[in-house]
Amino acid sequence: MSFIEVAEDSDFSYQNLPYGIFSTLSNPTPRIGVAIGDWVLDVTAVKHLFSPELVEKCIDGQTTLNALMGAGRPAWTEFRNTLKKILSKDDPSLQNNAGLRASALIAANEVTMHLPAQIGDYTDFYSSRNHATNVGTMFRGKDNALQPNWLHLPVGYHGRASSVVLSGTPVRRPSGQILPSPTATTPVFGPCRLLDYELEMGFFVGPGNKFGESIKMEDAADQIFGMVLMNDWSARDIQKWEYVPLGPFNAKNFGTTISPWVVTMDALSPFRLPLEPKVVTSSNFKYMYWSPRQQLVHHSVTGCNMRPGDLLGSGTISGTVSLSVYPIEVMINAINKDGDDVIMTGYAQGMGYRVGFGKCTGKVLPAQQV
Amino acid sequence: MSFIEVAEDSDFSYQNLPYGIFSTLSNPTPRIGVAIGDWVLDVTAVKHLFSPELVEKCIDGQTTLNALMGAGRPAWTEFRNTLKKILSKDDPSLQNNAGLRASALIAANEVTMHLPAQIGDYTDFYSSRNHATNVGTMFRGKDNALQPNWLHLPVGYHGRASSVVLSGTPVRRPSGQILPSPTATTPVFGPCRLLDYELEMGFFVGPGNKFGESIKMEDAADQIFGMVLMNDWSARDIQKWEYVPLGPFNAKNFGTTISPWVVTMDALSPFRLPLEPKVVTSSNFKYMYWSPRQQLVHHSVTGCNMRPGDLLGSGTISGTVSLSVYPIEVMINAINKDGDDVIMTGYAQGMGYRVGFGKCTGKVLPAQQV
Ligand SMILES: [Ca+2]
Ligand SMILES: [Ca+2]
Ligand SMILES: [Mg+2]
Ligand SMILES: [Mg+2]
Ligand code: NI
Repeated sequence: MSFIEVAEDSDFSYQNLPYGIFSTLSNPTPRIGVAIGDWVLDVTAVKHLFSPELVEKCIDGQTTLNALMGAGRPAWTEFRNTLKKILSKDDPSLQNNAGLRASALIAANEVTMHLPAQIGDYTDFYSSRNHATNVGTMFRGKDNALQPNWLHLPVGYHGRASSVVLSGTPVRRPSGQILPSPTATTPVFGPCRLLDYELEMGFFVGPGNKFGESIKMEDAADQIFGMVLMNDWSARDIQKWEYVPLGPFNAKNFGTTISPWVVTMDALSPFRLPLEPKVVTSSNFKYMYWSPRQQLVHHSVTGCNMRPGDLLGSGTISGTVSLSVYPIEVMINAINKDGDDVIMTGYAQGMGYRVGFGKCTGKVLPAQQV
Repeated sequence: MSFIEVAEDSDFSYQNLPYGIFSTLSNPTPRIGVAIGDWVLDVTAVKHLFSPELVEKCIDGQTTLNALMGAGRPAWTEFRNTLKKILSKDDPSLQNNAGLRASALIAANEVTMHLPAQIGDYTDFYSSRNHATNVGTMFRGKDNALQPNWLHLPVGYHGRASSVVLSGTPVRRPSGQILPSPTATTPVFGPCRLLDYELEMGFFVGPGNKFGESIKMEDAADQIFGMVLMNDWSARDIQKWEYVPLGPFNAKNFGTTISPWVVTMDALSPFRLPLEPKVVTSSNFKYMYWSPRQQLVHHSVTGCNMRPGDLLGSGTISGTVSLSVYPIEVMINAINKDGDDVIMTGYAQGMGYRVGFGKCTGKVLPAQQV
C-alpha cells in the first residue's frame, strides 16, 4: 500500500503507476511523471532515490519516455521497484519529508501532459475478428468480408506517425475525394461525411531489434513496454474510394489520438489470461484473435527494425470487450458530430484494485474551409 | 564556373551542389557536406563565409539536414547562393586560401556518408501508369489492373521509416508467409522467392504544415527540398498473400535504400518541363502521371501534418524513363540474387552540364536462418 490515498475506483492505483510526460506552469520543461490517484509524482524531483545508472540513462534530460523504453526489462523492473518503494507506506524517504513531498507531488489537475514518446513509426493492426468482419462487409460485402489471409497472420498497415496526437487535441474533420452515391463512379471533393472512430489499445515498443534480425516469440514480452488507449479516427467514405489496392491512406492520416499515461505490462501482467486463444470460437470471440506479442513478432519477421517508442495499434475492439489476453474493459461515448467530444476509457479490475488508462478524448472540429 | 575542376560526366557539377551528411576518420561527427566533382566541401569548415543566421539555424551542431530542410525557401536560396560564391572561380576566399582548402575540401572517396535526414515518416506513391498496370496485372489480372481511383488521385501508402537505409547497406532477403503455388490456399513460411526492386525518386519535405491545415498547390513548390534515388525493395510473394485489404506491409518494411546526396529542386529546376502532363496518352506515357507537388498536396489534404525530412517516394519508374516533370534518366542493373549488388543511377543532362544523383546500391544478403 501507498501512503498516498487512492480512491477505489481510481484508474491510477498503487498497483498501476503508469508513466507519462508532463510539465507545469512553474517548470515548463517536459519530464517524466508517474500517476498515482489524483497526484503526479515528478520523477526528476526524487531522482536521488534512484540508482545513478537509471538517473543517467533514463531520467536526466529526458523529455520523452524513449530512453526508458529502450533501456529494457532489467531497467524497467528496477525503475518500477524504486517507485513502489518511494511511494510505499513503509518507506520514510518521501512520506516523511514535507519539503520533498511539496515539490515532488503535484496535483494531477495542475499538470500539462505531452506525448509520452517520440514515435518513430506507427503501425495499426486489425486483429478483432468481429471488427474485421463488420468493416469487410461494409466495403466488400458479406461474402468477401474476411480475407483468406486474416486467420493466418495479423493483418496490419503502416500508419502516419506525425499525426499521432495527445488526448485532448481537437481533430478536424478531413476533406478528400468521396463517391457521392453508391452508384457513382466519379468522386467529388469535400468534407468527410462518414467520420468514424476506432477504439483500440496502442502499445509501445521497448528496445527493438536490429535491421535484418527479427524478434523471436520468446523475446516478445521483453519488447513491449506498455499500453495506452487509442482512437484511430477514420474517414470511411474517403477510405472506401481510396483503399484499393494499397490500403487506407488519407482515410487514416489526419489524426490518431492516444491517452497520456502509459500503463506498463508489469502493471497489467497480474490480469493476463493463462492461455493465448489460438482458435476463435463462439465462446471466446470477445477476445482479440492476435495478441500484441504475435503482432510485434509478425511485424519484425522480415527483419523490419523496431525502435524504442514505436507505437503499434491493436486494431479496433468492438463494443465493451476485452483486449486479447488482457481483460481490459473499454468504453466509449459514441457520437462524433462537429463539436462533439469522443471520450474513451478503459481499465482492468480485480484483486481489490484497478489498473486504468485514464481518458483518451478528442473534439471534432468542422472541416477546413477550402 | 567553379575553380574546382569537374569532369563533364560527373554527377556533381557546379550547377548541382547536392547536400549530404558525412563524417571522416579524423572527425567522426556527422556534418553537412556538399558534393562537387570528386570532392566534398565540409560546410562547417567554411561556415564563417555564411551569414550568422544560417550558421546558427542550419549548420552548427547539425548532424542531419532536417534543420536546413525546415528553414524554408529563403534560407535554401541564401545557402545555395553562398555555396555558389564560395566555389566560384571569381571568389578568392576559399580558392586562394591553401590552408582552408586543405581542411574544407575532402576527397569524396575518403568520407563516410550517413542518412541525410532523420525521417519522421516515409510515404510511397504509385504514380507511374505503366508500373501500376504491370503490377496490377500480376496481382489482379488484366481486367482489374488499374483501379477506378487511380486516375483521380495519386495512390500511395504509408511506409516504414525505420528501415530506410543508406546506399551501400546490405539488405537481407526477408522471410514471411507465401502461397507455395498459384492454386494453394494455405501459406507456408520461408524466405521470399520473388525479391524485387523498385527504382524510384524519393523527395524530402521542407518546412511542412500544421496538424489540421493542408498544403495548397501554390505553396507546394516551397515545400519540396530535394530528391534522391530510391530502391523500394519489395517481396512480391509476401505482398500477394498479405496485401488485401490493408495494402503492402511486410512485403515492403524490410528495407528501402536511398542515395546519400540530396539534389535540390533549385538544381533541377532548369530541367523542369513547362507543363505538367495532366492526361496520359501514348505520346507521353513515359512521364509519371502524378507530380511530386500533386503527391504532397494530396498527402496533406486531410490535414495530415508533414514534417521537415519526411521522405516521399514517387512510385516506380519503369525502365529508363523520365520522372514526371523532371526529365531524369534513371538506370539499373537488373539482377537481385543472393550476393548481387543492385545499383541504381540517374541524372538530368543538358545545357553543357549534368545534375546527377550518384549511386543507390544494395547487396542482397541470404535470408536469416530461422
Ligand atoms: Ca484501426
Ligand atoms: Ca514503390
Ligand atoms: Mg489514425
Ligand atoms: Mg521499401
Ligand atoms: Ni511511418
